[in-house]
Amino acid sequence: MDSAIDPRLTCPRTLPRRVPEDYQPPYPSYSARAATRIDQVVMSCLGVQYATEAQPEQAFEAMQHIISMFSGPDGPRHHDLSYHRDNQDHHNLMVVAYWLDPAAYARWSSSPMVADWWESDDRLQDGLGYFRETHCPRLEQFETIYGYQNDLPGIGAVMGAVTGEINEHGYWGSMRERFPLSQTDWMWPSGGLTVASGNPADGGRVVVKGHDNIAVIRSGQDWKHAAPDQQSLYLDKIQPTLVDGMNFLRDNGQAVGCYSNRFVQSIDLDGTLLGETYNVGHWSSLAALERWAETHSTHLRIFATFVKMAATLEELRLYHEVSVSDGSNQTSEYINCHPATGMMRDVCR
Amino acid sequence: MDSAIDPRLTCPRTLPRRVPEDYQPPYPSYSARAATRIDQVVMSCLGVQYATEAQPEQAFEAMQHIISMFSGPDGPRHHDLSYHRDNQDHHNLMVVAYWLDPAAYARWSSSPMVADWWESDDRLQDGLGYFRETHCPRLEQFETIYGYQNDLPGIGAVMGAVTGEINEHGYWGSMRERFPLSQTDWMWPSGGLTVASGNPADGGRVVVKGHDNIAVIRSGQDWKHAAPDQQSLYLDKIQPTLVDGMNFLRDNGQAVGCYSNRFVQSIDLDGTLLGETYNVGHWSSLAALERWAETHSTHLRIFATFVKMAATLEELRLYHEVSVSDGSNQTSEYINCHPATGMMRDVCR
Repeated sequence: MDSAIDPRLTCPRTLPRRVPEDYQPPYPSYSARAATRIDQVVMSCLGVQYATEAQPEQAFEAMQHIISMFSGPDGPRHHDLSYHRDNQDHHNLMVVAYWLDPAAYARWSSSPMVADWWESDDRLQDGLGYFRETHCPRLEQFETIYGYQNDLPGIGAVMGAVTGEINEHGYWGSMRERFPLSQTDWMWPSGGLTVASGNPADGGRVVVKGHDNIAVIRSGQDWKHAAPDQQSLYLDKIQPTLVDGMNFLRDNGQAVGCYSNRFVQSIDLDGTLLGETYNVGHWSSLAALERWAETHSTHLRIFATFVKMAATLEELRLYHEVSVSDGSNQTSEYINCHPATGMMRDVCR
Repeated sequence: MDSAIDPRLTCPRTLPRRVPEDYQPPYPSYSARAATRIDQVVMSCLGVQYATEAQPEQAFEAMQHIISMFSGPDGPRHHDLSYHRDNQDHHNLMVVAYWLDPAAYARWSSSPMVADWWESDDRLQDGLGYFRETHCPRLEQFETIYGYQNDLPGIGAVMGAVTGEINEHGYWGSMRERFPLSQTDWMWPSGGLTVASGNPADGGRVVVKGHDNIAVIRSGQDWKHAAPDQQSLYLDKIQPTLVDGMNFLRDNGQAVGCYSNRFVQSIDLDGTLLGETYNVGHWSSLAALERWAETHSTHLRIFATFVKMAATLEELRLYHEVSVSDGSNQTSEYINCHPATGMMRDVCR
């Protein structure tokens, strides 16, 4: 049985695990593994926001322009597209892109093609909102889990390899214990969100400054290839509870330490909705994420249902990736987004 | 805010807590506190077993005789009565009795009144089964939790005092963290159950030898004084899930490390069923109990429902007490009980 922790990152523990040495998980799960030597990755959420009355055509063109900038040697290794409507009745197209090397991301984002587009006054005047939330966890600062070993989504699509069955899952606290850093570090947060420039209430350009150990979770559900009976089971019996939990975090997250929660549905380049959803949640700390997951009835119900149905829901592809990062490895930038967008809502005033 | 751990038993931690120092529980809970200096307590489960065809009158007389032996200075400080039918279709009356002092228990159980009755050949020939399972945890070896502060049941009825709101609850792992011993000790088990004398398959007298850190949980539900709407809510929406979980442990416990699980209903001296149930579960380790509670869908559903309804179920009195004990502080004795009774089922062969 494999460890979720890459052997290269195993070190003498100063913090114990919660479970006995002979712990055996109740069902199989897997983690992504780096196929080559990498030290730090990049996840960037690139968004286009438009109000109810605006033209979606223009927003889709903007999204397609963002994707067109991905070509070239420094572009991301993988990306996917999604749509969500937020609780301010704004529409959001989001491209989530991954790099295996922060230097490549830096070259890409500072290239004239990208930088001139982002910094152009046109962005302030074209009637759309834009956001760019990027964080760069080191390899010891993230974990992944999948119920399957093929065609991994998200960061798993760029890591290049996958483990065998891992030991660290199936108990509360196992998410933390899959982080290599958990061997020696509690990953406590340092402070709160602050505005580095701009003013969320005024629109225009805003930059939010993060802090050490903001936790980011991407948790996905893919029923595209499930048989009809499994699709029905998921959509009728499980998804409603998931949506309840996601809406709670979207609308009440501030009280539990969730800075932002976007529950999105995958789309193709033309905007057609696909049979796949995921959330991207930003949390004040890994501990805050743990507390919600362990205590909130919607998540407990989701977890209970999954545990009960894991064997019968083999064709439902579930996964998550969770990371923390240093404050210096985060950027959260907004252009003409409503003030409850992303990290702006919970900045300290 | 109080700690569940008595200040007298607080010591420098060598094992960390799972939650941050500023953790705040999501709803109030309380623990029993020793009002006087005590070091070790005694919980004894005294049972009378009869087969379907046998006369319940005789069993009730035996139970009443057991209770009659409680009078006197060395008798238990508190006891309660219950009934359950087990999965061998045997009926069981059980008296659970508590002492604040193992010396008093030793004097009581070795007194001629008690010892002569237990050791009499009449016990082998009166057509009833008897069991006596006793364990004596030291004060650092048990924890309690209640949703209320008055009229505590079980061990709480003899401890004499109650805390204010405690910090250590509302997260997975908090049960362990309420044990004073968890500050420095994982409470791992030592070995399995063995037969000290007799042969379960033959009936007659059997003594089972335990091992260090067998965990015993008593977890109760009291709806006697709830308003009718809360009674209905409990009996219709929550109890069926609880019964599913209890039946799973009764019938499939061996696979998950649960030696015995009795889900019982309180009765009065005449056998009238009262609006109160509890289970007494014996586990191979605290870790095994944790794993089941954290993973099994019935328990997750119970927990999720409780968390969701905690505020609206104020009149439902929920509690539990969990202990571990040294193997030398346990006795499990049986007379003419069927071989799946109590600790007999899972003895190593």
